[in-house]
Amino acid sequence: MTLPFASADERAGTSPYVSVTTDFGAAYTGVCAGVVARIAPDARVQVLSDEVSKYAVIEGAMLLRQALPYLPVGVHLAVVDPGVGTPRHPVAVRTGRGDFLVGPDNGLLVPAAEALGGVAEARILENPRLRLPTVSSTFHGRDIFAPATAHLANGVPLAEFGPELAPTPLELPEPRTGEGELSASVLYPDDFGSLILGAGPQDLAAAFGPLEYGAELEADGVRVRWAATFGAVPEGEPLLFTDSSGRLALGVNLGSAAARFGLSAGGIVTLRDIRRS
Amino acid sequence: MTLPFASADERAGTSPYVSVTTDFGAAYTGVCAGVVARIAPDARVQVLSDEVSKYAVIEGAMLLRQALPYLPVGVHLAVVDPGVGTPRHPVAVRTGRGDFLVGPDNGLLVPAAEALGGVAEARILENPRLRLPTVSSTFHGRDIFAPATAHLANGVPLAEFGPELAPTPLELPEPRTGEGELSASVLYPDDFGSLILGAGPQDLAAAFGPLEYGAELEADGVRVRWAATFGAVPEGEPLLFTDSSGRLALGVNLGSAAARFGLSAGGIVTLRDIRRS
Amino acid sequence: MTLPFASADERAGTSPYVSVTTDFGAAYTGVCAGVVARIAPDARVQVLSDEVSKYAVIEGAMLLRQALPYLPVGVHLAVVDPGVGTPRHPVAVRTGRGDFLVGPDNGLLVPAAEALGGVAEARILENPRLRLPTVSSTFHGRDIFAPATAHLANGVPLAEFGPELAPTPLELPEPRTGEGELSASVLYPDDFGSLILGAGPQDLAAAFGPLEYGAELEADGVRVRWAATFGAVPEGEPLLFTDSSGRLALGVNLGSAAARFGLSAGGIVTLRDIRRS
Repeated sequence: MTLPFASADERAGTSPYVSVTTDFGAAYTGVCAGVVARIAPDARVQVLSDEVSKYAVIEGAMLLRQALPYLPVGVHLAVVDPGVGTPRHPVAVRTGRGDFLVGPDNGLLVPAAEALGGVAEARILENPRLRLPTVSSTFHGRDIFAPATAHLANGVPLAEFGPELAPTPLELPEPRTGEGELSASVLYPDDFGSLILGAGPQDLAAAFGPLEYGAELEADGVRVRWAATFGAVPEGEPLLFTDSSGRLALGVNLGSAAARFGLSAGGIVTLRDIRRS
Repeated sequence: MTLPFASADERAGTSPYVSVTTDFGAAYTGVCAGVVARIAPDARVQVLSDEVSKYAVIEGAMLLRQALPYLPVGVHLAVVDPGVGTPRHPVAVRTGRGDFLVGPDNGLLVPAAEALGGVAEARILENPRLRLPTVSSTFHGRDIFAPATAHLANGVPLAEFGPELAPTPLELPEPRTGEGELSASVLYPDDFGSLILGAGPQDLAAAFGPLEYGAELEADGVRVRWAATFGAVPEGEPLLFTDSSGRLALGVNLGSAAARFGLSAGGIVTLRDIRRS
Repeated sequence: MTLPFASADERAGTSPYVSVTTDFGAAYTGVCAGVVARIAPDARVQVLSDEVSKYAVIEGAMLLRQALPYLPVGVHLAVVDPGVGTPRHPVAVRTGRGDFLVGPDNGLLVPAAEALGGVAEARILENPRLRLPTVSSTFHGRDIFAPATAHLANGVPLAEFGPELAPTPLELPEPRTGEGELSASVLYPDDFGSLILGAGPQDLAAAFGPLEYGAELEADGVRVRWAATFGAVPEGEPLLFTDSSGRLALGVNLGSAAARFGLSAGGIVTLRDIRRS
């Protein structure tokens, strides 16, 4: 586990920290945060995001994986749950760093757990005393996940929630390398319209050999510059860069690559090394 | 008053809890929350929602009615105020549970007060010492409602704010029952595009008799299944369900009923029992 | 410095207050707030806005100028940073009121500093021990600005961050007066679609002489009423009013002036005194 920084936060005595991440928009997220605040009145509750794209488990998982190592050790509630009301399990995961991740067992939590020292223990949330008295079939965020989050913040041991399980892993699309080509999936467009790709700079190096900043490539037939940051290309020009989460990304300086390339989550981008053509 | 759950939060000694609900978007809401934080520095301030549809008093009222019973006892600031600057009164309402609801007297607060044990006392916010020194004619959230919220959180007695009044009730559209038909208004589309209707499962039973999950109905001519949850119908298929607030709602599994039915707040949906046709 | 109100908040002993304002949307803003929460666990962290229009430095600066005088004295993190990764400096500014403003040196912070008693001291954020160990080239909010904010909230002296600089001022478009005319730029549309103009009521008086509420003007050929508030004109009708920030603004009662006039930030509105034509 390589965390981006150490912090005095990992001291004893601080009030417990809770983050909340959903595809709910503000209102339903606020209800969940309120349930946490009611059951765990001493917790510091922060909404990490209520704007994950609807049902976008990969986007949510990537946000958690990128963000949580920067946040305080705490209890992290995350709900992107296309299967609410189906038999998928509600789970809580303890990480090597000491966090708890709470949400549906659909892969959402696993990449973040791996970035936080791995899954130390995972339990199904089935103890009815640690849920709200009535559980609806459409709002498990409020009725199961938020109460579990709060009880964990209050120090209830994970073992009390239910039996152990091995969390369902997240299936991420892999990049494909051809002759002078690298094809990668769009994992998600970020809020600026940058297309975050399922490939890293090491995949680029493996496909094309060493590249200097400033080199030109083609992305779906459009010339793009390999650059360290947006300001390295003129306004409105596309670039390929390493995003702050460590992935390859297509961006447009002061513009939107999602609009420019007409791509969204699940789309495929093919990068070509035009030095060879 | 039947609250969804009891909580240790209702103990003495916890710092006062403040929730904020508006149709303002983030910035103006943040200003209100900041005014509360300045006057009541010990309060825990949470934004319940800054995304209520503009001027949608019914949507805001339904959110408060649904959400507040799940939140800590506290002071709940709510502003959806199409009449800002007109003679409508600014009010604060004390509920049977012990909350204070602060906002315009346009019906916004009343359903939530009823869900919290009823209106115990309501006062007009006219004491100038409990407003900001200068009151603008367009931003009462900042100048009247947020300061009142903060002073109530600080323990200022409600009687100091102004004279009593009887809060203006909210007029909600009633469902209508015909021969094998139930017509209901769309109260609001939620963030997933589900259409929350001005009718409950009891209205459905009254119109059609007992229905088993899985039964088919027609909604505006479209076949929909009466189901417990989204996952009970295939992806992209519509369903009629009881929403987490206890109302009938039209949804689409992993999709938007608002888009599918072309309806928004105020629209009418007619449900027909196709077993009889 | 004329602040809108005094507050008991400026007492000793309150936990430090941090506000966060960005054009990042929820997720990247949440990461920044989380970094602050991790390094400064005792701080009260509030998001003022994560919805500033992308790259809109003037809009962000006007929000800060309007909002911060209403917020607690504290550390205010603000990032609207079209030049991230270019040589523009990261800065922290101490104000006459005792706040710290942290963000890029592109004019964003200066109008707010002036509203808070002026720039008392400004420093470049270049001390590597007060940044995260690794600084990306695309996310200075997380790697430079949030850590600086947290360290300032923890009491680290401003002088430790780096050398002094004179902050870059913000260039605001000035109104122009012709014969019976006043032309002003749209600084930004607010969340209700009101067009906030780069002119104040004093400019109106200078151009047209004294105006009584109810007087009619023309704005880009459309008749608008000079009014104190929205409710003074019929629903759907345009008005010219003094916005809660003290600027002239074009609004539409229960509607959007941005849609009605087809204008956005940077557009020019010409007001004419039709009493003279």
